[in-house]
Parts: sequence; structure tokens; C-alpha cells
Amino acid sequence: MQKAGLLLGLCARTWKSVRMASSAVARRNPLENKVALVTASTDGIGFAIARRLAQDGAHVVVSSRKQQNVDRAVATLHGEGLSVTGTVCHVGKGEDRERLVATILDINVKATALMTKAVVPEMEKRGGGSVVIVASVGAYRPFPGLGPYNVCKTALLGLTKNLALELAQRNIRVNCLAPGLIKTNFSRMLWDDQARLESLKATMQIKRIGKPEDCAGIVSFLCSEDASYITGETVVVAGGMPSRL
Amino acid sequence: MQKAGLLLGLCARTWKSVRMASSAVARRNPLENKVALVTASTDGIGFAIARRLAQDGAHVVVSSRKQQNVDRAVATLHGEGLSVTGTVCHVGKGEDRERLVATILDINVKATALMTKAVVPEMEKRGGGSVVIVASVGAYRPFPGLGPYNVCKTALLGLTKNLALELAQRNIRVNCLAPGLIKTNFSRMLWDDQARLESLKATMQIKRIGKPEDCAGIVSFLCSEDASYITGETVVVAGGMPSRL
Amino acid sequence: MQKAGLLLGLCARTWKSVRMASSAVARRNPLENKVALVTASTDGIGFAIARRLAQDGAHVVVSSRKQQNVDRAVATLHGEGLSVTGTVCHVGKGEDRERLVATILDINVKATALMTKAVVPEMEKRGGGSVVIVASVGAYRPFPGLGPYNVCKTALLGLTKNLALELAQRNIRVNCLAPGLIKTNFSRMLWDDQARLESLKATMQIKRIGKPEDCAGIVSFLCSEDASYITGETVVVAGGMPSRL
Amino acid sequence: MQKAGLLLGLCARTWKSVRMASSAVARRNPLENKVALVTASTDGIGFAIARRLAQDGAHVVVSSRKQQNVDRAVATLHGEGLSVTGTVCHVGKGEDRERLVATILDINVKATALMTKAVVPEMEKRGGGSVVIVASVGAYRPFPGLGPYNVCKTALLGLTKNLALELAQRNIRVNCLAPGLIKTNFSRMLWDDQARLESLKATMQIKRIGKPEDCAGIVSFLCSEDASYITGETVVVAGGMPSRL
Repeated sequence: MQKAGLLLGLCARTWKSVRMASSAVARRNPLENKVALVTASTDGIGFAIARRLAQDGAHVVVSSRKQQNVDRAVATLHGEGLSVTGTVCHVGKGEDRERLVATILDINVKATALMTKAVVPEMEKRGGGSVVIVASVGAYRPFPGLGPYNVCKTALLGLTKNLALELAQRNIRVNCLAPGLIKTNFSRMLWDDQARLESLKATMQIKRIGKPEDCAGIVSFLCSEDASYITGETVVVAGGMPSRL
Repeated sequence: MQKAGLLLGLCARTWKSVRMASSAVARRNPLENKVALVTASTDGIGFAIARRLAQDGAHVVVSSRKQQNVDRAVATLHGEGLSVTGTVCHVGKGEDRERLVATILDINVKATALMTKAVVPEMEKRGGGSVVIVASVGAYRPFPGLGPYNVCKTALLGLTKNLALELAQRNIRVNCLAPGLIKTNFSRMLWDDQARLESLKATMQIKRIGKPEDCAGIVSFLCSEDASYITGETVVVAGGMPSRL
Repeated sequence: MQKAGLLLGLCARTWKSVRMASSAVARRNPLENKVALVTASTDGIGFAIARRLAQDGAHVVVSSRKQQNVDRAVATLHGEGLSVTGTVCHVGKGEDRERLVATILDINVKATALMTKAVVPEMEKRGGGSVVIVASVGAYRPFPGLGPYNVCKTALLGLTKNLALELAQRNIRVNCLAPGLIKTNFSRMLWDDQARLESLKATMQIKRIGKPEDCAGIVSFLCSEDASYITGETVVVAGGMPSRL
Repeated sequence: MQKAGLLLGLCARTWKSVRMASSAVARRNPLENKVALVTASTDGIGFAIARRLAQDGAHVVVSSRKQQNVDRAVATLHGEGLSVTGTVCHVGKGEDRERLVATILDINVKATALMTKAVVPEMEKRGGGSVVIVASVGAYRPFPGLGPYNVCKTALLGLTKNLALELAQRNIRVNCLAPGLIKTNFSRMLWDDQARLESLKATMQIKRIGKPEDCAGIVSFLCSEDASYITGETVVVAGGMPSRL
């Protein structure tokens, strides 16, 4: 289970050619000269993604709703020699309503759409960019008891296709990551109860709960030149949980 | 393109057995003793569905936001000897905001969810029921220029799966209809322009725009006992437009 | 689990108009004046489909590989006052090889393709027709231990889309039924073992194994004029087992 | 359009930890100490994949049906300082029958299944492995006029899910690549005709035909430790052609 993490990889197309991008040298820092804004990135999957993008050469903007969480994440990543900046960013309206359908829709779907559109002009100036939306395997097959969450994630699959269509002519690609059961604080209710965890594991082919790091590589990949012919697609990272054909 | 029509077929399980339901006699009035509430049903697809359900034996409640439209639809169907009642029902908040993401999400997704839940207690009293949500083929492959509409329709695919899961133990089935390009007032912008119509037709295998009646039979079917083992599914009625595997 | 049942509904377009087809009179015998060829139809799902099409007014050709099975099925349906004929038809090559990938592919996919093409000229003479291919929910999410069966069923989803594309201009619609776990002799290995049955039931939302009759209504529907704008689609009848979005 | 390329990435699990695999050092040669067998790899997409895997540190076995093609490919890659070996490998039976349904099924589906199973024991000895099957976007939405090809590619989507299920407990992951229109000799008939090319481009969001290299990065990624929680999935690389939700 994931918060509505949205990744906006601002791509400076400074590479001389695809050929060069494909060379071993380029791949050492596949995201060099790029700026990545990662929302909800002080913890869990978002944090793992932020760290990975920075390791791969991007300058990363870490963002979340609470100053202290932002500060802690930035300090940790600075301590690893990575290039990051932090910013507080409210994409929702109030924690008290977070469990209501309305707010979940707001935060997940509307905020993702609005945030993407807000960054488009900057991406255009740089000659293009890459957006990776974080949905969930619950978008395909509902997690029981999490209706509004699941429905929003399904909506994000559609948002991915629609933004890909709208932004293609501006050289902006839009793809989506659908994680399965990943061990984060946010998903604790799913894995803390042993019985529930076992019933979820029974639907996996790789018999372990995922780690946030399992989600980071694919995001880096989707932001890189290697993915330059991929748009509108969703990649599922769920240990083989039932998703779609 | 369709308004967020939601069909709630309230099923009185008065049939003695599936066997009887399968007999020729039962099929003459497959929806006898059922009450169907059809929202957004004074025109277009909703109206065709309402008429068909009444022809198949149900008592139909026609509903829309404007009294005069409700009155006109009820008069028409009464004139055909059908059993209908009308009611005005505001599921949205203001026409002026209808084109905004927020309101489209509200009307399409939240209203559908809330309306379904409102009817559940009545369905339970009757021993079960059937809900048919109306999405769109745009849920699978976006109609250009209709982003918020498309995304809401995608969300409805997820809502269908989630409501099916939540309501199964109450003997309520939840399915979904995804129409393609159907000739209604609501979709006029898609078929009124000849160039746009031709480009859409090129993606169809059956080379004609659909009629509202093309959507009515499947809804009646999904509400009938013949569909008693079908839940959580979406049926596409789109003349072979690209949808999914 | 189903044998590769293929239904070929030969439609004589004798109805005067869709309007008339939609009237209550037409719906009493929605398949009147049609001839339906149902392969693998002496038992299980195929038999239930054959009976239902005959009850709905079609003349049905019952077919299978063994004369005695054909005779028995024809006698049963005659005894119910239905209009049927029987014919022996080998669509495969040898039972001894049935469990091999090659033969399963042969029987399921190639035979379905060849059989459909063999009937096309006759359908064209009559002005059009309807084909319903029988796949399985295993096409979307594999039944464990049934690899070749599952893969063939996946191939049938593609065959449906391809035949729909090829045959649309001849007024032939091609759709597909994907049953879940249906209680037939063929699927006995899946439901005879109580532990396996319970583990499959855990994935259903409607907590019962399906009956062959649960699959018959949708086939009759897909062959009727009510489905005249539906082609290339698959309808899942699986009590809410995980399928696809 | 692609030949039935099958990639078998034999993974020697020599990395000490995921942590190390995630480090910048490991990512310079993400496939170090691995052996990759790439079938149909002397040209087009297969060749681009073979080159990329070698650049990423794997020892690559180049394979095809003709000795001279194998020799040429090996010489080219040796000339780039890459570690490759060549071997002739007949996975089909006769070019004369290649366009028939039967043979296409044989070569694409059966050969892929048999080849995978042949390599499993070797993978097990090494502690696990990764298989990447090459399907096509035609698996989801048929290329007109290429029915048997499309159907086989659909079958490969199912084969991916089934092999993933069967091989998970042996620590072997199975995923799939579905390329769109890629400029190769094999797909010449689709892009050589300007009218056909334009009609295909109209369905893309990124308005160019793909290059074989566009397909190589994702294969390297799926074979790497970064993808260790991904199995049974298909990634579409098609410039946004309609695929699935």
C-alpha cells in the first residue's frame, strides 16, 4: 500500500545521442543533469525512490507535508553524499478527512493531475521530461477493506494514459508503477496481522513481502533515456500477485 | 460518451428456482417483480435502458436533475404501457462546475458509490440485488480532449470490482457496462464533427456509431437471473473499438 | 475448466428491424430462425448452452466426437420438445496426445480457428452470424498445474480479437465466454478434492462453484440481436474470481 | 513485429546483498557474472538486446538458425570488446511452413516453453535465473493481416504468467517484453509501405517508429537484481500505442 507518491523527473536532454546514453559511461549516472521532484518521499517507497534517483545522478527534491520529516530525510541523504534539497508541500487538505472517499480522491487523483500540470512548463523549458505516477496492485484487484484507496489507484491507471496522451507532443513521457505489498509504515495494517499477511502471501509467487528498494530501480529506469519509447504504461512490482494479463 | 448513469436493479428474489428462471415462461418477463432505479435516464442511453427494463417486466424509477425532463420521459413510457415512476434527483452540485475535474469525479465516482450504498439496505430486505454501473470505453483507451471524463470512467472500473467484493455476501452483484461511441446528445461533440467521427469510426470494427438501444439489452441481461454467477465484470459495447484483452 | 467449446450461431437476419427485435414479441424467441452449431455439446457447459439456444428458438446442431454421446444428448433435448440435430465431429486428432502442449494448442486454438473459417461461407450466405468462443478465467490468471490448458485459453482471447477484426466486414461478430470454476466432468479434478475446491472458493466473491447453466444465458445473449454492437469482447462468468480490470 | 526472441538470463547470485546490488558500483555492471542466452539474436531487437546485456557485464550466447549470421554477429560484438559466444540453434522446423498457423504456434509458443524448460536445470544449479519472453503489442490489439502472429503473441502473455507460477519456487523469474512497431528487417512489411506506416503512427503517442535499442534497456533491467520482485509481468515498449490499462 502506498501513499500517492508522484515522481516528476525533470529531464535535461543534454546527452549527445542515444548511442552515448547507451554506453557504459552514461549508464554509470543515467540520470545525470536531471532534477527529480519526489512527493511523499520522506519515508517508505517514496524515500527509496528518492535515494535511488540521487544515486543514479539526479538532483532530487524531497517533499512531504511535515517539515521535520523533510529535514530528517534530507539529512540522511546528505550523509550519503547525495545531491538533495527538501521542501514542504501540502498536496492534501487535512489529515482528519484522509480516510474519506472525497479526500482520498482529492489527494490521489486531483493532486497528481494538478501537480503534473504545474511542472509541465518547467519540463518544456528543459526540452522534455518524465513523470512516474505511483498506483498500486490494488488498482487491478482490490485489497479487501480499502475501497476508496483501491478506486483511486485504478483512477491513476487512467490518469497515466490520459496524461501520456496529452503531454506526448511536449516530449514528456508519463508512466506508472503499481507496487504490491511493500513493507512500509503506511501498509502496516496489511502486514502487521500475521493471518492477513499469510493470506496475502498466498497470492504471491515470490513468497516474501516487498521492500521499498524493490520499487526504486524501475522508477529510475522509467526516468532514464533507456525508457524513451515507453509512455502510458504501468509496471507492476508485486512478486507475482494477480494483476492483469 | 455517457453521463454517469448508474443502474440499480432491485431484485425481489421471488422466483422459485433457477430452473424456472431458465424456462421460456420466465424469460418473457425476466425482470418481473423487480424494481429498477435508473439515474440520468430521461434521455440517451439511460432512457433506452429504462425503457428496456420496463419492457422486460421491471417497475422502473426514472430519475434526472430536471423536473420537466423527468415528466416528459415518464409520459413517453406510460404511453407505451410501461410501469414507471419519476423522481428528481440531484447527484451533483452545480452545472457550472461540471467540467472541472473535481465535480466530474464527484458526480461520477463519489455519487455512484454513495448512491449504491444508499440502496443497499433496501436490496438486502428483498434478499439481494444487482447494480450496473455505466462507464465508457474511454476508461480503457482515452478519448482525446476528455481527460477528466476518461479518468472517472477508469475509476468506475475499479469501483465495480470494489463494490462487487464488498456486497457479495449480501447477495448483491455489481457489474459495469462500457459503451463506445453512442449517438446521444451528450456525445454530440464526438459525432457532430464529421472528421472526428470518421477518425473514431476507423477504430471500430462494426462501422457505425452505436444506438442507445445497443446498450440496453446487456443491462437487462446483467440484472436477470441469467447473470447470477457474474459479478465484478465489465462488458464493453463498442462495435469492436480497442478496449482490452 | 472447459473443453474447447466453440459456438457458431448462424444467424438468418429475417427480423425486419432492430426495433422489432427489441419488442417483447421478438424476445420470447430471440434466436428464432437461427441455426446454432455447438461443438463439444453433449455434456457440461456445451450441453447447457445447446439447450438454452434451443429454448430461445434456434435450431441447434449438437456435436461431439462420440456417436453415443451425440445420440444421448439429442434424445434428451428432443424429449424436452426442442429442435435439435446431432452430428459427430472430430476437431482433434487423438485422445492419447491430448495432454501434450502441441495437441492442446491444436485442438483449442487451431481447431477453433479452422472451424470458424469453415463456417464463414455459410454465414455469409445468410447475411451474417455470430461466433462465441469458450475460453476460461484461467486465460487471465493461471490455474496451477494446468499450464498448457491455461496458455491455450489465453490464445483464444487473442483469437477472438483477431477473428472479430477479420470477419467484421462480413457482418459476423466474434465474442468469447470465459467461465470460472464450473461443475462438469471435465473439471472434476479441480472440485473433487475438497482442499483444492476450498482454495479456489477463497478467490470467488460468490461463494459457490458455478453450474453449466450459469454459462448458457450469456451465450444466447451474445448470439441475439441485442448484442449486435458487441464484437471482439470476452465476458467472464466466474463468480467474481480475479480476472482483469 | 518481432521474431520469437526468448531471452534466458542465467543469473549467478554472487552478489553479497541487495544493498550492494543497489550501490553505484554494482550498477556499473548490473549483469556481472551472469550468462545470457539470447535466441534469434543476430539481427534486429534480439541483436540489440544481446549487445546491451554484454555491455552491462553479462557473458552473452548469441544464437540463431544460420551459422553465417551467428558468425557475423559474434564478430561485430567481439569488435566492440564484448564477451560473447555464438551457437546455431534450430527452434523451428522449416522456413517454408513459417507462415502457417501451426508452425507459428510451434515456433513461438511451444519452442519458447520447451527452451525455457531446457534451461531450468542449469539455472537451478546457479541458484536462480531470469527469463524474458518477447511478445508484441499485437498481443493486445491485433495488427491487421497478421492473425496467427498476433494470436501467438497473446499466447506468450499467458505463457509468461504460467512459467512465472511454475518456476517461482526455483528462484526463477519470468517476465515479458511487448514491443510496438520497431524498425527491423522482420517488420519491414509494416513500415516499408508509407500509408501503412502513417496509419500505425497515428496510433502512437511518441510519433516515431521504435529502434531495436529501445527494447534493450528494459530487458537488461528485468534480468538485473533491481527487478527481483517482478515476475509474471509484461512491459510494453511501443511509444504509447494502445495496449491495455
